[in-house]
Amino acid sequence: MAGNADLDRLFSPRSVAIVGASTNVDSPGHDYVSSLRIFGFDGDVFPINRSADTVAGFKAYATLDDVPGNVDLVISCIPASGVLELIEQATGKARFLHLFTGRFSETGDEDAAALERQIEERAKAAGIRILGPNGLGVYHSAGGIAFRPDLPRQAGGVAFLSQSGNNAVEVVIRGTARGLRFGKVANYGNGMDITPGELLRYLADDETTTVVGAYVEGVAGGREFFEGLRAAAARKPVIIHKAGRTAAGAQSASSHTAALAGETEVWSAAIRQAGALEARSQEQLVDLMVGASLLRGAFGSRVAVVGGGGGRSVQSADACEENGLDLVELPGGIREQVRERAPMLADWIGNPVDQSILAGSGLSSNRLLELMLGADAYEVAIANVGEEWFFGRPDAADRLRHACERLVSIVSGATKPVAVVLGATESTEAWQRELIDDLRMDFVEEGIAVYPTVERAAWVLGRFAGQR
Amino acid sequence: MAGNADLDRLFSPRSVAIVGASTNVDSPGHDYVSSLRIFGFDGDVFPINRSADTVAGFKAYATLDDVPGNVDLVISCIPASGVLELIEQATGKARFLHLFTGRFSETGDEDAAALERQIEERAKAAGIRILGPNGLGVYHSAGGIAFRPDLPRQAGGVAFLSQSGNNAVEVVIRGTARGLRFGKVANYGNGMDITPGELLRYLADDETTTVVGAYVEGVAGGREFFEGLRAAAARKPVIIHKAGRTAAGAQSASSHTAALAGETEVWSAAIRQAGALEARSQEQLVDLMVGASLLRGAFGSRVAVVGGGGGRSVQSADACEENGLDLVELPGGIREQVRERAPMLADWIGNPVDQSILAGSGLSSNRLLELMLGADAYEVAIANVGEEWFFGRPDAADRLRHACERLVSIVSGATKPVAVVLGATESTEAWQRELIDDLRMDFVEEGIAVYPTVERAAWVLGRFAGQR
Repeated sequence: MAGNADLDRLFSPRSVAIVGASTNVDSPGHDYVSSLRIFGFDGDVFPINRSADTVAGFKAYATLDDVPGNVDLVISCIPASGVLELIEQATGKARFLHLFTGRFSETGDEDAAALERQIEERAKAAGIRILGPNGLGVYHSAGGIAFRPDLPRQAGGVAFLSQSGNNAVEVVIRGTARGLRFGKVANYGNGMDITPGELLRYLADDETTTVVGAYVEGVAGGREFFEGLRAAAARKPVIIHKAGRTAAGAQSASSHTAALAGETEVWSAAIRQAGALEARSQEQLVDLMVGASLLRGAFGSRVAVVGGGGGRSVQSADACEENGLDLVELPGGIREQVRERAPMLADWIGNPVDQSILAGSGLSSNRLLELMLGADAYEVAIANVGEEWFFGRPDAADRLRHACERLVSIVSGATKPVAVVLGATESTEAWQRELIDDLRMDFVEEGIAVYPTVERAAWVLGRFAGQR
Repeated sequence: MAGNADLDRLFSPRSVAIVGASTNVDSPGHDYVSSLRIFGFDGDVFPINRSADTVAGFKAYATLDDVPGNVDLVISCIPASGVLELIEQATGKARFLHLFTGRFSETGDEDAAALERQIEERAKAAGIRILGPNGLGVYHSAGGIAFRPDLPRQAGGVAFLSQSGNNAVEVVIRGTARGLRFGKVANYGNGMDITPGELLRYLADDETTTVVGAYVEGVAGGREFFEGLRAAAARKPVIIHKAGRTAAGAQSASSHTAALAGETEVWSAAIRQAGALEARSQEQLVDLMVGASLLRGAFGSRVAVVGGGGGRSVQSADACEENGLDLVELPGGIREQVRERAPMLADWIGNPVDQSILAGSGLSSNRLLELMLGADAYEVAIANVGEEWFFGRPDAADRLRHACERLVSIVSGATKPVAVVLGATESTEAWQRELIDDLRMDFVEEGIAVYPTVERAAWVLGRFAGQR
């Protein structure tokens, strides 16, 4: 088999064999098979299991040799000790081998590390490309493949690479709830053969990929990684979460995926020079990916801010200024429009717009947002919902819903990026938590970027404005 | 009336008159009256309303003059133009006057500012102490008084002072959901007479107050403020969120409560020298108050971290080290206990404990947490729940619930402070969001500190460790 340069068949295989497929529903060997069914995989599925007739409804095969023809992707859930033999069986038959199998170099054990090197050599000689070991592999909803059956079915153009498996799951679940629609996701684990650098180079050219996020603890081939990063960042927004920044983190990273973590400042500078954005936590990573995906073109620093009371206005102003955003004064034209409705407010109101002083004026912060989005003075906006104020009013749920519907319609119709601030669901009242969750989903389903605090919204807008 | 030095009767008045009491349930003039009923206020309530017989079930009086005897607290919901006359009526009758009434100096209008100064002089001459203007006033559940009927009934020793009203509401609602039990809360608005400095001095000596938080945008009398701050911080944990740090923020603060915001660095240094902790956002404020209230004595830097997968372990290590915490190695004794159960893990496992390598070993991260809490090596701990891992398993809800119950029992029984990390409810699945919210409430009701990210938990522990 020649010409494995292209990773298309890794993310969109036409056939998948799962070695170590299991009928135990509480095992990865079952998850990989059932995921193919649940995600509607339309190629051939070959669970390999000596004793079962079927696994997750698919006909099972005793050995890989019994599978007819070639297979694009073999997923290995067997113990490390069986992998060398598996490579022999896969030679001439499989294009990609994903080793979910772990307990190699990441254990710190010499023999385990030696076995990993041996596997690498044999696979190379056999022309089989390896993803992993010690990684969950591929999640690509549009390709019908996932490493867990419960992952979101929603699909889109956000690619994500992760050295860590649980981190990949967390980013996918949390990111989808924030409006990210994922495309090609790979948890490459120890990155023995297919490296994050190669994956980045692939995603750079991949036309279905619009935004790239990556979580790395350390990389063996720094030059290749940064070449891939530069290539990707030249074509689309790329966010890198580099962990293992500290001595303790690096030590933990080493036991985790056997990679040496580099030095923080060197990494930061290299990420910046490559034209990518750096996240220092999973939260920042998701926040920036939401910005890249849903606030496209948010490269302006002249920001309009509305909503919330006086305290929120002051806090918004601090957050904007500390992130390099420019709170341009309300244009005279808008003041005159305010004067017509509420003369007392015309010289008092400012940017941020303090919602609490609008009471009784017939003007709402939604109306002010509309006016400001229409003014040349502003390039981007932040809209604070200020939900706690509503909670104290009669018909709180209806009024909050109404205000949010109006906000959805304004933001959806705007030509400028708007970040909405709607709090985390921190309330002792279940109805308030459920309402906020529902409203967040309403925004998200309209493709609107929502941040739980104004500080996080301003931080993201500031990072993008800094890229202009 | 003499001897208003003590603010006890402001927070626990024996009688309250509400001027501008309203039968319109969608008005503050109704809120103040109905709150007294809902919070079980056991003193005399006198709604002042010319046309209504009753307000929120209390007999109404046409004017303050009609109220029999003296009144500890008069709450004013009337327009600014009526306040001078109200002070005349209240002279010799009222001890405290809370002016919810706004539209004074905060508007930037000269005449409005002049009226505020006139009110200040007249009240001083009349021996009436004023809270406000332009503030929501007092929330003190134990005293039966609140500025909104929907505020939490739970009561405790956490005092909170806020220049901003909506900010006070947000901190109270969000903080209660995080386990804070509030005592004396005051939104002092423009702070014309009763200043945050005086309130801090009062809370310093107040035996029911165990923790103090304060949100200030700027203060007129810096020396008095810092004297109050020093007095309070000498006796109990005090957290200050200073907003209006930037030019834009200060401008906004000025329009908000007519206070001049000071310079960031001067403020930071002064807060530190006073022995208090500084928050730079509402989120940090609540996080630190949760730490002060629920992680008492968290002054150690030797931290044990468990839970989550490899990625979370690396991220936890970064967060701990970047916040000055010391990830002390697993003591030999614990390694030996691990070796008995799982020989392969004994030399591999570290601190943070990577939950994902424990699979099949019979050891759980809860068990490791127990062992580490029992070791002299550690002074504090962080427990990552890692809920996304459970979501992928059969019986996810039961298993996650079980793990959390066990964690509650370990943390409740521990003599060392443990911060639990349970994510924000970011999932597209309603059952997952509701489950996480329920579990958070379970922790909180047992008085356990929960943070949505390991970074926030480590940041808080780092701030307290730095105070040793």
